[in-house]
Amino acid sequence: MILLDGKKISAEIKNEIKKDVDSYIKKGYRQPHLVAILVGNDPASTFYVKSKMKSCAQVGFKSTNLNFESNISEERLLEEIKKLNNDEKVDGFIVQLPLPEHINVNKVLAAIDPEKDIDGFHPFNLGRLILGMDTFVPATPLGILEMMKRYNIDTKGKDVVILGRSNIVGKPLAISLVQKQYPGNATVTIVHSKTENLNVKLRNADILVAAIGMPGFVKENMVKEDAVVIDVGINRVEDKTKKSGYRIVGDVDFENVASKCSFISPVPGGVGLMTVVSLLLNTLKAYKNRYGI
Amino acid sequence: MILLDGKKISAEIKNEIKKDVDSYIKKGYRQPHLVAILVGNDPASTFYVKSKMKSCAQVGFKSTNLNFESNISEERLLEEIKKLNNDEKVDGFIVQLPLPEHINVNKVLAAIDPEKDIDGFHPFNLGRLILGMDTFVPATPLGILEMMKRYNIDTKGKDVVILGRSNIVGKPLAISLVQKQYPGNATVTIVHSKTENLNVKLRNADILVAAIGMPGFVKENMVKEDAVVIDVGINRVEDKTKKSGYRIVGDVDFENVASKCSFISPVPGGVGLMTVVSLLLNTLKAYKNRYGI
Repeated sequence: MILLDGKKISAEIKNEIKKDVDSYIKKGYRQPHLVAILVGNDPASTFYVKSKMKSCAQVGFKSTNLNFESNISEERLLEEIKKLNNDEKVDGFIVQLPLPEHINVNKVLAAIDPEKDIDGFHPFNLGRLILGMDTFVPATPLGILEMMKRYNIDTKGKDVVILGRSNIVGKPLAISLVQKQYPGNATVTIVHSKTENLNVKLRNADILVAAIGMPGFVKENMVKEDAVVIDVGINRVEDKTKKSGYRIVGDVDFENVASKCSFISPVPGGVGLMTVVSLLLNTLKAYKNRYGI
Repeated sequence: MILLDGKKISAEIKNEIKKDVDSYIKKGYRQPHLVAILVGNDPASTFYVKSKMKSCAQVGFKSTNLNFESNISEERLLEEIKKLNNDEKVDGFIVQLPLPEHINVNKVLAAIDPEKDIDGFHPFNLGRLILGMDTFVPATPLGILEMMKRYNIDTKGKDVVILGRSNIVGKPLAISLVQKQYPGNATVTIVHSKTENLNVKLRNADILVAAIGMPGFVKENMVKEDAVVIDVGINRVEDKTKKSGYRIVGDVDFENVASKCSFISPVPGGVGLMTVVSLLLNTLKAYKNRYGI
């Protein structure tokens, strides 16, 4: 069993990005600049935004956190987005999800200039993904693809089963992995809560991607011998031995599944770190596009 | 075995559209108006455009065919599209594919105003499809979904296998059928030329959609007993008994497969007719959106 070490490869990629940025700065370009919009003060969201800011600093990006009260109106939020769209000194920005219920998420995401949409959630960018065009791939699928590349995971003709049909992981990853590219050319099945004979389908997977947000859902008897298992889950479970009172676990019962796998990604230390790094990669891409470099 | 009779249901739908149009005309609205751009004089493309025009007439739509020489420049074509985008009297338009090689298809499709993109090929509309938002579903997938509805084909939890990963059928249909809707909630697998053990996968399908453009590819031994088989293929094969020298066949070996199926769509007389009708449905939708009716 080989561990898909998100910690190690995300550090590698950060080094590569930093080198790139340094070379641009030397040539007289400004720093790449990422802005994160955070509405309210949900602890998990605040944590994610902080971790993104921290990663920006590590690679030499400028970052700005715009924090708004949870009662901000949709109209006002859309105005802020318009400002960022028009700000020449912002390369890319994200709106940290979830948003309060009185705000229409799809409307907000569609208001982002697709050229600055480093989360890749804008319909225009998702459509370009379907068409196999150059685009901002959403951060989690991009992180998974990058992880596959770094570990030379063979995907051509392989049976990939994606557990979960979300807009930000399941569907875009499925589309990426059927394209005529590497990673890609896979036979992709999307399974979900309505799927019949789920265990049989999961056991058929050469590559199993778990993205349903249910702690330890994927058990040993659902995984084929020598499968590649990629765990996208980031679930909090109560743990009184921890100072915080909880610990983070994935969608896979790692302890019992790992020994069966050819490759497996741990949680924490797996896909989560790749997601943050992908956001940096997309920001760098937006920056390069802006300057045609 | 029940025939999924495209001829019958496309006629039904046309009647429904015609009634709708008549009621709008009575209220003083103008006719819905579809424009088809045809570049060059490829016989198949010319045939398709003619058939679309004819269908428009049947439901009370105005239709216009803009025919350009095959050496039209990309720039000029983009100008024509801009004119149509700005023309208040055009509800929707299509650019008949394929285009000559000197023209960038993706650039042309992305130039169409998404609100007039009745083929549903614009990245923005395909992205909305992924997000489960209201959109113009591409005509062939829309026709298949409509066919499923009219025959009350159960899709929830069913194993759908889609043979073919094209931008206009395989990928958008897969996305539609995993969504939390009807038709949808299916377990969807996309298989293609790189898929291993293809026959096993096809035989697992409760619903098999063949869309690879290979005459009679799907044989009896690839289909499960009582499967629903939907044949998207429109292939010309030589036939000296015909005046034209050819006949149209699907991707399924209908003669030998049909008796095993619970439902099967014939070619011709199946999905092809539904595709044309879907274009009418999308045009009507664009027209209604325009007037907020």
